[in-house]
Amino acid sequence: LRKGIGDDCAVIKTSGSHDLVITADLLIEDIDFRLGWTTPEFIGHKALAVSLSDVSAMGANPVWALVSIGVPEKIWQGDFVEKFYKGWFRLARKFKIELAGGDISRTTDKIVVDSIVAGEVKKNRAILRSGAGIGDLIFVTGGLGGAAAGLKLLEKGLRYETATKSEKELLLKQLQPTRDFKNTFLGENKLATAMIDLSDGLSSDLGHLCESSGVGAKIFADRIPIHPKLLKISEFKTNALDLALNGGEDFELLFTIAPKNIKKLEKHFGKTVTCIGEITDKSAGLQLVNGDSIIKLKPKGFSHF
Amino acid sequence: LRKGIGDDCAVIKTSGSHDLVITADLLIEDIDFRLGWTTPEFIGHKALAVSLSDVSAMGANPVWALVSIGVPEKIWQGDFVEKFYKGWFRLARKFKIELAGGDISRTTDKIVVDSIVAGEVKKNRAILRSGAGIGDLIFVTGGLGGAAAGLKLLEKGLRYETATKSEKELLLKQLQPTRDFKNTFLGENKLATAMIDLSDGLSSDLGHLCESSGVGAKIFADRIPIHPKLLKISEFKTNALDLALNGGEDFELLFTIAPKNIKKLEKHFGKTVTCIGEITDKSAGLQLVNGDSIIKLKPKGFSHF
Repeated sequence: LRKGIGDDCAVIKTSGSHDLVITADLLIEDIDFRLGWTTPEFIGHKALAVSLSDVSAMGANPVWALVSIGVPEKIWQGDFVEKFYKGWFRLARKFKIELAGGDISRTTDKIVVDSIVAGEVKKNRAILRSGAGIGDLIFVTGGLGGAAAGLKLLEKGLRYETATKSEKELLLKQLQPTRDFKNTFLGENKLATAMIDLSDGLSSDLGHLCESSGVGAKIFADRIPIHPKLLKISEFKTNALDLALNGGEDFELLFTIAPKNIKKLEKHFGKTVTCIGEITDKSAGLQLVNGDSIIKLKPKGFSHF
Repeated sequence: LRKGIGDDCAVIKTSGSHDLVITADLLIEDIDFRLGWTTPEFIGHKALAVSLSDVSAMGANPVWALVSIGVPEKIWQGDFVEKFYKGWFRLARKFKIELAGGDISRTTDKIVVDSIVAGEVKKNRAILRSGAGIGDLIFVTGGLGGAAAGLKLLEKGLRYETATKSEKELLLKQLQPTRDFKNTFLGENKLATAMIDLSDGLSSDLGHLCESSGVGAKIFADRIPIHPKLLKISEFKTNALDLALNGGEDFELLFTIAPKNIKKLEKHFGKTVTCIGEITDKSAGLQLVNGDSIIKLKPKGFSHF
């Protein structure tokens, strides 16, 4: 075992040229999803996507997967399981993931899914949370806050079928998160010094990365890439920054790189990555620069228990 | 992928000298265990044991594991999770299994565990269910029916604390199944032509093995090794054979070997393995020889949905 509990994935030595990385993610009905808010296909997609995101956050290439699913008798009688796998396999085909196995069981009343995805990365090349150094630049992929905004729309009673085009885009960020889960450029080229995926929220996940690395961070509010559709819906205009900072489940990547590598990075990724700040000394803590003021950034994203 | 769904484990190629085998087993509260009937330590033990059993049924050496566990808030507040891991780690230490990771989540009301164990086996040496040939001898390890008898005692209201010594032994077969999960002799020496672990029950699991191998089987009632404690408790004397044939969760091994290898087998295992019959042509189906009569053996063990 190269790395056990405490990163996006475990990293396991093999007798071959590559390390194996593996992650497991539980999705529980009425905790992680509600049947009235989503579809079986979306649940199948998301179960795979959240684990693909973890594997790609190690700089690894996801290859195979297991799915364990427990459903109550009444759900078993219907077409839920079939549609769940339809959504799962649609995403799996896109990224050439093989379903190796899993378990299927009865439950007393709620649906439960455990999604396991494994990938490979060159020996000792997995990107951990713990490698960020002072002076490294902090980047994120994509736009942030979309998944949290989608959740707020669902909580308000909006459903996919009746949503506008902009609303649909935000709902899909929440219900069917997608990104290039097979981009191993950062890992193969040893570009990122540390990486984590944005599942709990930027403020929390930056906290995890900094704690693992034993460093602090300073990020700039006006550099945080807010999901463009947030600014098109009036109710989100006033709290867009809050959603981007503290909303969970964007499943984008947060990573750090040495300043000397910035050209290489931008050449490959173009404008799909954004520099939001830099790594500082641990004693400085997490700082958010907002206009003229510097405030202490508190992790306000999702916390497990 | 060398072998996907449809065996005790998936078998996955690696870039090294060994294949990876991996299995996942869901354990659901009030389906697979009841809190009033067992202890958190026993649940932790059993979660690992059932997956170790699957890995060893491939002739592979179990090496590392993941555990995903979901618990409701009230259970999280208590010491269940700590005691669960105590039982899990006690067994893990015995067989040198490393905990690589997993997930932990909240549920609305029931406990759910997904146990994942991976092992290694020399390239192309995994023992599948599908390799049995006509004339092969059928063996089982240990004694059968104990776990099913233990379950019957629990259903009757008996609890571990107040049980007699014989009853305790049967309860432990159900609550804390154990066997030599690291015996890779059959795999390394390519002795077994096919293998499966006895989780659903002998009649069902023999059916699975024969169906995968495209063969039939004839087994002898008087050769089936009944768990010795079954014959010490009056209520089980009349149905001991039924429990041994159709009771599940013994987690012993059922395997087939070519007759020429029987000496090698018995030299290694002595009386801990028992020949119960032989593989026949598919057209003969599954036969049970009981005294002078031959009856059709029907799978009556546990079936998933």
